[in-house]
Amino acid sequence: MNEALCTLTRKPDRAAERDVLDEVFDRSLVATVSTVVDGQPWVVPTFVIRDGNRLLLHGSTGAGALRHVANGAPVAVSAFLLDALVVAERQFEHSANYRSAVVRGTCTEVGEADTATTLDLFTERILPGRPAECPAHTTRELAATLVLELAITGDNWIAKQRSGPPSMPTGESWVGVIPVHSAYGTPVSDSRCPLPNSVCRLIG
Amino acid sequence: MNEALCTLTRKPDRAAERDVLDEVFDRSLVATVSTVVDGQPWVVPTFVIRDGNRLLLHGSTGAGALRHVANGAPVAVSAFLLDALVVAERQFEHSANYRSAVVRGTCTEVGEADTATTLDLFTERILPGRPAECPAHTTRELAATLVLELAITGDNWIAKQRSGPPSMPTGESWVGVIPVHSAYGTPVSDSRCPLPNSVCRLIG
Repeated sequence: MNEALCTLTRKPDRAAERDVLDEVFDRSLVATVSTVVDGQPWVVPTFVIRDGNRLLLHGSTGAGALRHVANGAPVAVSAFLLDALVVAERQFEHSANYRSAVVRGTCTEVGEADTATTLDLFTERILPGRPAECPAHTTRELAATLVLELAITGDNWIAKQRSGPPSMPTGESWVGVIPVHSAYGTPVSDSRCPLPNSVCRLIG
Repeated sequence: MNEALCTLTRKPDRAAERDVLDEVFDRSLVATVSTVVDGQPWVVPTFVIRDGNRLLLHGSTGAGALRHVANGAPVAVSAFLLDALVVAERQFEHSANYRSAVVRGTCTEVGEADTATTLDLFTERILPGRPAECPAHTTRELAATLVLELAITGDNWIAKQRSGPPSMPTGESWVGVIPVHSAYGTPVSDSRCPLPNSVCRLIG
């Protein structure tokens, strides 16, 4: 692990603790998987969930990028939460309140025996209660799905955050923050059946 | 340009047109800049805006990553909009409605003479009307800011999307989509001055 890649060289006050990393991956749903192909940066946004000290990602066994990563290419998995726009007096002091995290390393494939339970875990994190409402995975479905994990160790991650009001206010004009929220809307049904409990709970 | 990096090898039906790329970068505000450092993937989320056929990013001249990218390291700038969770009967068919885009290439530095107007453009895209409300940039502020552009050409980008209901419904249980919205909340003032017009307009 290149130490510089996991060390903040600027604004060390924005370095954040492990709980921020957990929040970021637990709330962002979508993360960005970066890797290197023929010396070039390669990137794809995908669902990533956290399970304790590992990140989980999954996709089709036919997905070239996922196979590349499964074969040991180094990855950097990043996610962020944009919490607010920070409005200052001077454009220079405008900023964002955010939380972000990156985990680096090499993915390993989740063994076939654990694919079903790991996929359940994946769905459970995105839509709690949903796996129990679905029929069991078929052998064919499991065989078509690649599930990868990336360990979160003591030193292969970085988390950053900024919070609070803008800096350098003079009191001569308005400064403050504009919160950014993400929320679920009313489900759009493609069925005459009643909403499942998982969906009702998610949308509150 | 490695052609494979800009070609979808799976699900070509999800390849999208240039207007999707524009929507993604115009609405996401935050994008992910991926590059390669010593053969390792390196990534940072940052504000990125689109201006016609270029993406603009900026930061402190003291930011190591930005300098690396300014010095010609290849980048992949990606962004996504998560539009909805797609709930199907089988876990295997669960998905997401999304729009995503990646632009690849090498950044060039915006010349000093254009830094001020480009920074105005940057702020204008995030908080329309704000540059006109702020005092002029100082020479010191401009000197401390690095502004980079990445051209969007005919063939250095990819856009993808999924929309619509889940596939493979049998009619035996509910299927549909749960929209995901992002919105601005009530501004948090750190000042007794009245809200500026730009902020009032943004929050509607």
